[in-house]
Amino acid sequence: MGSSELDVPSLMVDAKRLAECLHDSCQYGAAHQYGKLSTETGMARLSLDDSDKEVRDWFMETANSLGCRTFFDQMGNLFAIRSGKNNNAPPIMMGSHLDTQPTGGRYDGILGVVAGLEVLKVLNENSIETEGSVGVVNWTNEEGARFPKMAVSSGVWAEEIPIETAWGLREVTTHGGNPKSIKEELDKIGYRGEHPASYRANPFAAHFELHIEQGPILEDEGLKIGVVHGVQAFKWFDITVRGRDSHAGTTPLYARKDAVLSAAKMVVAANTVATHHSGLATTGIINAEPGTVNTMAHTARFTLDVRHVRDDVLETMVKACEAEFRRIAQEDSEKGCDVEWKVLVDSPAVQFNSECISVVEQSTVNVLSALPETSSSKLWRPMISGAGHDSCYTNLRCPTSMIFTPTRQGISHNPTEYCSPEDCALGASVLLGAVLRYDRLRARRGDFSDLNC
Amino acid sequence: MGSSELDVPSLMVDAKRLAECLHDSCQYGAAHQYGKLSTETGMARLSLDDSDKEVRDWFMETANSLGCRTFFDQMGNLFAIRSGKNNNAPPIMMGSHLDTQPTGGRYDGILGVVAGLEVLKVLNENSIETEGSVGVVNWTNEEGARFPKMAVSSGVWAEEIPIETAWGLREVTTHGGNPKSIKEELDKIGYRGEHPASYRANPFAAHFELHIEQGPILEDEGLKIGVVHGVQAFKWFDITVRGRDSHAGTTPLYARKDAVLSAAKMVVAANTVATHHSGLATTGIINAEPGTVNTMAHTARFTLDVRHVRDDVLETMVKACEAEFRRIAQEDSEKGCDVEWKVLVDSPAVQFNSECISVVEQSTVNVLSALPETSSSKLWRPMISGAGHDSCYTNLRCPTSMIFTPTRQGISHNPTEYCSPEDCALGASVLLGAVLRYDRLRARRGDFSDLNC
Repeated sequence: MGSSELDVPSLMVDAKRLAECLHDSCQYGAAHQYGKLSTETGMARLSLDDSDKEVRDWFMETANSLGCRTFFDQMGNLFAIRSGKNNNAPPIMMGSHLDTQPTGGRYDGILGVVAGLEVLKVLNENSIETEGSVGVVNWTNEEGARFPKMAVSSGVWAEEIPIETAWGLREVTTHGGNPKSIKEELDKIGYRGEHPASYRANPFAAHFELHIEQGPILEDEGLKIGVVHGVQAFKWFDITVRGRDSHAGTTPLYARKDAVLSAAKMVVAANTVATHHSGLATTGIINAEPGTVNTMAHTARFTLDVRHVRDDVLETMVKACEAEFRRIAQEDSEKGCDVEWKVLVDSPAVQFNSECISVVEQSTVNVLSALPETSSSKLWRPMISGAGHDSCYTNLRCPTSMIFTPTRQGISHNPTEYCSPEDCALGASVLLGAVLRYDRLRARRGDFSDLNC
Repeated sequence: MGSSELDVPSLMVDAKRLAECLHDSCQYGAAHQYGKLSTETGMARLSLDDSDKEVRDWFMETANSLGCRTFFDQMGNLFAIRSGKNNNAPPIMMGSHLDTQPTGGRYDGILGVVAGLEVLKVLNENSIETEGSVGVVNWTNEEGARFPKMAVSSGVWAEEIPIETAWGLREVTTHGGNPKSIKEELDKIGYRGEHPASYRANPFAAHFELHIEQGPILEDEGLKIGVVHGVQAFKWFDITVRGRDSHAGTTPLYARKDAVLSAAKMVVAANTVATHHSGLATTGIINAEPGTVNTMAHTARFTLDVRHVRDDVLETMVKACEAEFRRIAQEDSEKGCDVEWKVLVDSPAVQFNSECISVVEQSTVNVLSALPETSSSKLWRPMISGAGHDSCYTNLRCPTSMIFTPTRQGISHNPTEYCSPEDCALGASVLLGAVLRYDRLRARRGDFSDLNC
């Protein structure tokens, strides 16, 4: 059955209320003031820190006040479910994440969660009873900023990452100290639940994620909505270069095994490889040990994030980096260094569910038709996401797709990250329409027939 | 008056006792075991840490047991003075340092201090009364490894570094936390003295420093002693590259201000400049903020240690790096980064005192003449030190020179750093002979005549 004939009420979200709710949630973990307004700050809400506990409490309270059933699972993923006519089938979920980068913004992840709450508010005030239940999910540690595995908790839910691996993940930290594990921090803030973190125990009918684009394309092309068809492939590596520590003043260049110099050459080489293949390569973390001014480091460590829309080209890029790094370590670093690769994340290219894409596109056309600009031009386009999201994991276990909104100057993972209240509201309205259409679709398809007999 | 006619007793130190004393002192801060023997470890005795306090207590106790007058100054520099016939003139000091790199060895600095104590033991057991007093000094934080200013405390003594600057120096640390200052740590271990850290209040007649070469030259040429004429020029910089943090997956290469990529290109460029000028360039510390895998860093910081035997060529090297870094930041990093230089240390080329060099050379010839190998070849050479030492500062305020011993494979600032007990003893015997010659020299010159009248 096609989704072309779906007839649902044309509802729009309340732009002002949505913006207020978003900024309300950002009181927990606000940081990096860049303008005069109280909302002109970035965020530093690292997963499972004190501010993340506070925003979790806020989320649960808000969802309860909307009449939802709420619970959290073993990974601290938060769920808020609004009942429909048939409550024995899995809910349609709207999900994203409330954690941020250490110098992050107010929209990445946060918009998707608060838009989900706004959708529930619109359903409530219009007394709409959906066919099945509808809910909101906040995924733990999507960013992978504090615990270095992105989307780890949707990964556990999808049974792609063993829970013991996830629980054992420790904070990114290069210095002695005592880095905490996810499990320790879940316990500390009281968000390690009993509910299994598994799609089997906690299935979804579908997963829709509204997110800022985090790139410049929509803004550059004057568009309002990106209908996301998939996600580019990416891999994260932790790379260790081992040389020999010796004195910076007395060791001739010819006699050196300089781990930092080798690592620097590798970072430059990865950029050259990425440019050549029209892909991306980024080193966000780099450090050296023992770390003193006048001693060559015996060890340099850096991360490498490589991306391409095609799995096969990404593989070619990684192989080119491997060969070039090996050459640098062996031939281009005087007495020779050793280089070791460790895979942190391997995320193949993702193709979202065609029915989900279809209802998002229908909703987009409907929402944008109300805008005055629409008469002259189409204000949306299909897109491939540059970044990974929890939707990559949910897509393995339930129909999934995403909606993008414009991002000022394409800047994200930065305190000045911004999406206007109007654009946020358009995205949330598209989300609302997509959920209602998918709800109607599954009812027509007979998803509830067994339950109704 | 020349020093050629000086006649002093031909004394040799006790090689076994010297080695035992050295390893005895290394029980405090031993780390990084690399072999089976208990002495086959490196050291991690960072300035003013708990193990540094212990070795200071050990030094003071040992010196007191040898009948010395001991005291420490405002920078925690330790002094042990053995009386001579005339005790109102300044002492001849034998000095070096007991602090080490975090992955350091058992000889760098330590040999010079324990050799000083061994010289006093030989004087005691031979009941030698020197013309003037003779002593040993342990300088605080020579390495600059924990507090990033090398030889800071001899620098204060020379009145080249204000004491408030030195006291305020904080631990090298990139992570939040609360880095401690030198003053706080001096107070914590009880070694902030009342005695002014100043060559005016605490003058020396001369300063002799025995040290391992820390390079491969003596070993490569089959020599036993380096008679050090001076130290190459070096500068240390802290370099900050500022770009813009944004998402690694959604920011096209053309739109990036990637601070890490720029820094990596600069590290490679500095190495090219050093190679071109036959100098040295080393980056021992590098890091990035905010430091997550999938965010370009907004800031990258690295240190640069550049060296050359000539001041003018060093200046040319620095200017070449400045120009190249500027070009990389502005032109070769897409949307452009900013680069900021901060000087940490500026140490011009040093020429030691000719009389000190002369007595060291006489002592060397005398000591080596006792070896069987000497008949066939000369076992010493004049040298320029690649590394900076406390002697660079003392040289500004009193006659100074240094003595080098061979270093296995030229490896230093590394746990496997090694100088054989026999070679250590040859160096200490040269030190003994140099001190006795300089003592005789100043008596003949009439340094004590005012005091004796």
